Amino acid sequence: MPTVCVPDPTRFVLIGTSHPGNVGAAARAMKVMGFVDLVLVAPRFDDVHRRPEALAMASGATDVLDRVRVVETLAEALDGVTYACATAMTPRDFGPPTFAPRELFAPLAEQAHRVAFVFGSERFGMGNADVYRCHACLSIPTTPDYGSLNLSQAVQLVAYDWRQALGGFSVVPRTPDARRADDTALQGVLDHWQRTLVDLGFLDPAVPRKLMPRLRQLLNRAQLTDDEVHILRGVARAIDKRKA
Amino acid sequence: MPTVCVPDPTRFVLIGTSHPGNVGAAARAMKVMGFVDLVLVAPRFDDVHRRPEALAMASGATDVLDRVRVVETLAEALDGVTYACATAMTPRDFGPPTFAPRELFAPLAEQAHRVAFVFGSERFGMGNADVYRCHACLSIPTTPDYGSLNLSQAVQLVAYDWRQALGGFSVVPRTPDARRADDTALQGVLDHWQRTLVDLGFLDPAVPRKLMPRLRQLLNRAQLTDDEVHILRGVARAIDKRKA
Repeated sequence: MPTVCVPDPTRFVLIGTSHPGNVGAAARAMKVMGFVDLVLVAPRFDDVHRRPEALAMASGATDVLDRVRVVETLAEALDGVTYACATAMTPRDFGPPTFAPRELFAPLAEQAHRVAFVFGSERFGMGNADVYRCHACLSIPTTPDYGSLNLSQAVQLVAYDWRQALGGFSVVPRTPDARRADDTALQGVLDHWQRTLVDLGFLDPAVPRKLMPRLRQLLNRAQLTDDEVHILRGVARAIDKRKA
Repeated sequence: MPTVCVPDPTRFVLIGTSHPGNVGAAARAMKVMGFVDLVLVAPRFDDVHRRPEALAMASGATDVLDRVRVVETLAEALDGVTYACATAMTPRDFGPPTFAPRELFAPLAEQAHRVAFVFGSERFGMGNADVYRCHACLSIPTTPDYGSLNLSQAVQLVAYDWRQALGGFSVVPRTPDARRADDTALQGVLDHWQRTLVDLGFLDPAVPRKLMPRLRQLLNRAQLTDDEVHILRGVARAIDKRKA
């Protein structure tokens, strides 16, 4: 286990990976979701995680690459793991049961497992013997006629769904929460505009054609803030002045 | 709108994209989730979607690249769209409200909107004017100290969550659903093993130490199939024979 403080001991295992760029992109995909434990089983090149393309695709996640372990077999990669999820596109008789990630993750997150997610090579996926070693098989729900995810995209989706199942990270509101106008303020806007529109000759009180209820619905949908109430009343005042 | 049959008119818009590989990877990420409408606003190169790296990263999704439209402004890209979601990492005063994707998508999918997802450039994200044009701002929940997703990974997560909100695709069971053994079959296994274990001298009927209830719990958790019942009874029979 890496020595950094992480809220869970989730491990990602890539078997027989060929492309350094995919290893780097997988590291970045893990890190944005708060995972740092990456093990490579028999990669095409032993230094695949140190090649320039891996570093480039890892962007700020080179620390994940720095602590990568390279091993020879899946058995070594699963040391310490209590629940291993294969990812596989092709049917395996006698293999573990298949689940969509979200379906499995909700109950799995309730248990005290040390979980590993195992991904096969870009060209051939996972071998049967490796799938059989796992407790479950994950299948990402894709369009029926094109289910070919890029390796690092699959890592990203699994990392995201698992993190969400573990409780997720909060989203920092990017915009200050402007104060919503209350009903009184809204009715004040409507009453003012009603007078103004009558003065303008746009609204005929004898034949109102439901104009005011329509404007009310529009403003309800818009969910005005107090600032916007001031703006709309300011506009009405400006019209009033011009007419005077 | 493209002429293929799709269940919804969702559009993906990439603004000022630099790297052909990202455009190709975005196309693949969209296609696996059943989306095909990709518009590029002022990319760094007008032919960014036709360059070799784009085609390589698109893998089987070159048909999405074939129907890409390249336009000059976000306004053109949003023609026909009724609800635009920005993706932005940095706060914008007076911008649209911010949501995590899943939080927004559930209610949004209930409405009859033509939705666009808008992504900024790799280096600078979205400009203020473009964010202001949108109805909502999406923020993918990431670890607080490293929120830097690769562009195509962000496209993948948004496409996945939106597809799930729209009803999703089903997962084809990869493994034939082996028949689960019923209670009678399970009790038959336990009774047989109980006799065998007593014969073996492993189980002392005078001091049973709750061995059989423990084995029952183990087999319950294992959710045996009929085939596995036969295997376990065969093993017991083999032990019986050897002793005889």
